[in-house]
Amino acid sequence: MMPLTRTELKNLRALRNKKGRREQGRFLAEGVRLLEEALRYAFLPAMAYDNPLALSERGAMLVAQLRSAGVAVQDVTAKQLEAMADTRAPQGVVAVFVVPDPDPQELFERRYRKVVLCDSISDPGNLGTLIRSALAFEFEAVVLTGDAADPYSPKVVRSSAGAVFGIPVLAINVDEAVRLVQGGGYALLAASGKGSSDMNKLNRVIAGHDFLLAVGSEGHGVSDTLMEQSTMCWRITHSDAVESLNAAVAGSIIMKQVYDAGH
Amino acid sequence: MMPLTRTELKNLRALRNKKGRREQGRFLAEGVRLLEEALRYAFLPAMAYDNPLALSERGAMLVAQLRSAGVAVQDVTAKQLEAMADTRAPQGVVAVFVVPDPDPQELFERRYRKVVLCDSISDPGNLGTLIRSALAFEFEAVVLTGDAADPYSPKVVRSSAGAVFGIPVLAINVDEAVRLVQGGGYALLAASGKGSSDMNKLNRVIAGHDFLLAVGSEGHGVSDTLMEQSTMCWRITHSDAVESLNAAVAGSIIMKQVYDAGH
Repeated sequence: MMPLTRTELKNLRALRNKKGRREQGRFLAEGVRLLEEALRYAFLPAMAYDNPLALSERGAMLVAQLRSAGVAVQDVTAKQLEAMADTRAPQGVVAVFVVPDPDPQELFERRYRKVVLCDSISDPGNLGTLIRSALAFEFEAVVLTGDAADPYSPKVVRSSAGAVFGIPVLAINVDEAVRLVQGGGYALLAASGKGSSDMNKLNRVIAGHDFLLAVGSEGHGVSDTLMEQSTMCWRITHSDAVESLNAAVAGSIIMKQVYDAGH
Repeated sequence: MMPLTRTELKNLRALRNKKGRREQGRFLAEGVRLLEEALRYAFLPAMAYDNPLALSERGAMLVAQLRSAGVAVQDVTAKQLEAMADTRAPQGVVAVFVVPDPDPQELFERRYRKVVLCDSISDPGNLGTLIRSALAFEFEAVVLTGDAADPYSPKVVRSSAGAVFGIPVLAINVDEAVRLVQGGGYALLAASGKGSSDMNKLNRVIAGHDFLLAVGSEGHGVSDTLMEQSTMCWRITHSDAVESLNAAVAGSIIMKQVYDAGH
């Protein structure tokens, strides 16, 4: 067991914060399930750390798989592992990944045909859940505009259940999003309490086009600038006993409706 | 401004914990939006506390409405209000409610025809979101079995967006749930990755019956004891790129499908 130096540990701990992630271009994920997902999507960590004494059988198997995939796994003490982990029970293993940097140009080249656009989704749990649903319902990319949570923060990675390893996440500004619609050939489907619920109309919009599905925050909805560009506003019918649905639930329901329409 | 005594403040602070809520039979809700929802559902607090200096115009209007509904609102200092609040920004107002105690016997009398059964939903955010969706999609009650989050904890109240004020939440044990199906006349629709997605079959189950829709936790799903009683297992079709959906998303999608089937 080779102990980490103070500097190494300090750098790893810094990855729990946005500043550290930006400076180092790396992020952390911990626990057996999350790292199994990363492996499943062939998204390999740059490095992993384990405490062999704390690993379950399944955890030991994961570490063996990481090693045979060529990932350096360093044994560390329980104390050091806990110091770098975000949760109290990292299940004996933590890994460091390079933050992916997909090129927004690929959007303009329409490499992604079905895209979820998360507009100012600042709640990490909601963003992670939307990324997970996007992957589940065969969306090909997630685009972030406005005041978004960092998709590689520990909370988002966790609530995505590892889906961040399986789908590209691209941050662009609102102007770029507008250009994607105006010149890029994407239809824009915007979630809105004031929209239509006409399934035939929805089918027409999504059948013939590549499209962006825009989901807004609970407080503010999709921003006016984007709403002005929308090809169609879509409303999820529900009782007026509640004002609105949770943002991740609303986005996921529409993704499911779009998924069903295409099958 | 009449300052709260130490004992009063201590009792209020204790309501942030499950033990305190159980002992006092009361819970707290804070912030203008949540309390507006409580008023909308005519669920009046036993008592409210405000800091007039911290109230927005909308907050001041809420306090006036509370007073004219007969609720005693006591002015307190910013420091005292913060001491009892769960969030850092209670927006100048906190209220104390009596924990509702709906009689499970009403389930056996089939007073509720469409019920969501949350089986071991221990994550407060997921439970709150499910309660919110239940109200949105015209379910009439939420039943909790197994290891559930406390529906009146600050986090659940918050993530329900106040829906806890608008729908009865009943905790029963699994044996009672089984009896509801075996002798109580409820059909049991269980969410399960191994179920059917045949919409005609779903329609048949829900058209003729009062029913319980059982949603399980992400780790374990609906418990075996309940699965054995199920009239139908329902699967949300999605890509196998992910193993499962978030529990609140899965439950909400099925509630929406049931809601659509009934309209």
